[in-house]
Amino acid sequence: MLAIDWGTSSLRVYRLDANGTVSDVRSSEDGILSVKDAAFAATLEHAASEWLASETPIVMSGMIGSRQGWSEAAYVPCPAGLPEIASALSAVQWTSGDQQQHRAWIAPGLSCLDQAGVADVMRGEEVQILGILEDLGKGEHVVCLPGTHSKWARVQDDRIVSFRTHMTGEVFAVLKQHSILGRTMPTDEFDEAGFVAGVSRAADPGGLLHHLFGVRSQVLAGNIAEAQSASYLSGIVIGHELRAAANEIERFHLVGDAALTALYELAASTMSKTSVIHESGAAPRGLFALAQYLD
Amino acid sequence: MLAIDWGTSSLRVYRLDANGTVSDVRSSEDGILSVKDAAFAATLEHAASEWLASETPIVMSGMIGSRQGWSEAAYVPCPAGLPEIASALSAVQWTSGDQQQHRAWIAPGLSCLDQAGVADVMRGEEVQILGILEDLGKGEHVVCLPGTHSKWARVQDDRIVSFRTHMTGEVFAVLKQHSILGRTMPTDEFDEAGFVAGVSRAADPGGLLHHLFGVRSQVLAGNIAEAQSASYLSGIVIGHELRAAANEIERFHLVGDAALTALYELAASTMSKTSVIHESGAAPRGLFALAQYLD
Repeated sequence: MLAIDWGTSSLRVYRLDANGTVSDVRSSEDGILSVKDAAFAATLEHAASEWLASETPIVMSGMIGSRQGWSEAAYVPCPAGLPEIASALSAVQWTSGDQQQHRAWIAPGLSCLDQAGVADVMRGEEVQILGILEDLGKGEHVVCLPGTHSKWARVQDDRIVSFRTHMTGEVFAVLKQHSILGRTMPTDEFDEAGFVAGVSRAADPGGLLHHLFGVRSQVLAGNIAEAQSASYLSGIVIGHELRAAANEIERFHLVGDAALTALYELAASTMSKTSVIHESGAAPRGLFALAQYLD
Repeated sequence: MLAIDWGTSSLRVYRLDANGTVSDVRSSEDGILSVKDAAFAATLEHAASEWLASETPIVMSGMIGSRQGWSEAAYVPCPAGLPEIASALSAVQWTSGDQQQHRAWIAPGLSCLDQAGVADVMRGEEVQILGILEDLGKGEHVVCLPGTHSKWARVQDDRIVSFRTHMTGEVFAVLKQHSILGRTMPTDEFDEAGFVAGVSRAADPGGLLHHLFGVRSQVLAGNIAEAQSASYLSGIVIGHELRAAANEIERFHLVGDAALTALYELAASTMSKTSVIHESGAAPRGLFALAQYLD
């Protein structure tokens, strides 16, 4: 089969054997934002035409199922596990240059309401969670998928019960690039002491908006070096995310990009919490698990 | 005398009579960022040359006293009142085109440490607080100066005891202009229902980073109209600021721009707090009070 993780800024096509083992992978920066005139079929042909000729089924996840993607796949409400998500797979069909007919399945995203009744959504991350369900096993688990929009999901007995999104990565990026804080950040190099100081800072009174200004005033006061200030800011926002999302739990699971999960593991240990990093490749495993539900 | 409020993006020159009443004012956008080659004296001559010839003393406040300004005036540590700030006034001198000698005084900013020992600074707002000391009278007061970097000061018996900065206005602006949230904000028009919903949202569990993502998901879910979403975001960040800065107090004072203080008053009343808006003109009154300490 082909398992395709097609997001906003990247496209990854995995070729899996009958046991779900990845035998080959192709990556490109042809995320949905760079696809012109809805030429999704042509983009996919360009990425892996000879695989398309031989491999079925084809199952895709990520922003490819959004309104801006190939075909909108409506959100499935939580709680949901493999059966609910698989039964909401929607199909796209096309004819390739050699007149061959193709069909691909798109996984839906998930929606849920938080305690206050406010809507939340994810698209793509749910497949990564499905990919680690076997590793998690039965019982209750908290899973964090750090990123631009970090997701924190509660999983119980193979179903995603609820989740919350935190805008951590994007807030960090826009503050670094566009606010006064970025003016004293000469380097992107990671500084562990600065990061840990930021994570600890998140525990102080005053709130996030006050702690953010402290990045500037601590640099002005000479208490934080300019070269540390980006890592200090990163620690502050991740620390606030962890305090809001994981204050009452001692142990959680991390899935995603290796650099990011390592950063979150460091933040968790700074806060005396245990985090379990899952090996990458959760997305193709989740898509393989979904494919088992297709006829 | 001349009282000059010279900030990052604007210059305001007030002519005051012997009683401190403003008899005339000139405003321009010649903030310190737009002054080239440190031509501060020439910029001031351009703004009010005939006043400079006749009025003394000249007292200035704001970013004109920063490292990027005319001459750096070192921060005075809190607690500080009129005597401490007046004794730290620093002078700049120059000769105008007609060979006349001029001297102007620059008010220092204030610094303090928050409970966690983290540095904080203000420059310009301290003079506005000095301008309302008479109105406040003796006793303990909390004063909020909303803005790009909102200041919350504790004033006791005519002295600024401590303060905290919240990066509220700038966080709102960069998220609106540069994050995914801004993509669904077609208008800058104020929407009271959206703003109040945002202020109330800040009381929910989940934290600011989660509430920020909710601006997007609530629009996607159709629970918040696109035209309301900028006001909803504004309510969320101001609500978080008020919860962090004024959670334990029932009454506080507002000083500053009329539109902003009205917004904060609405947020305060949504949270069942009382706010007292002080009439504008606090800066020249504070500079007049400082001038009384000059020989």
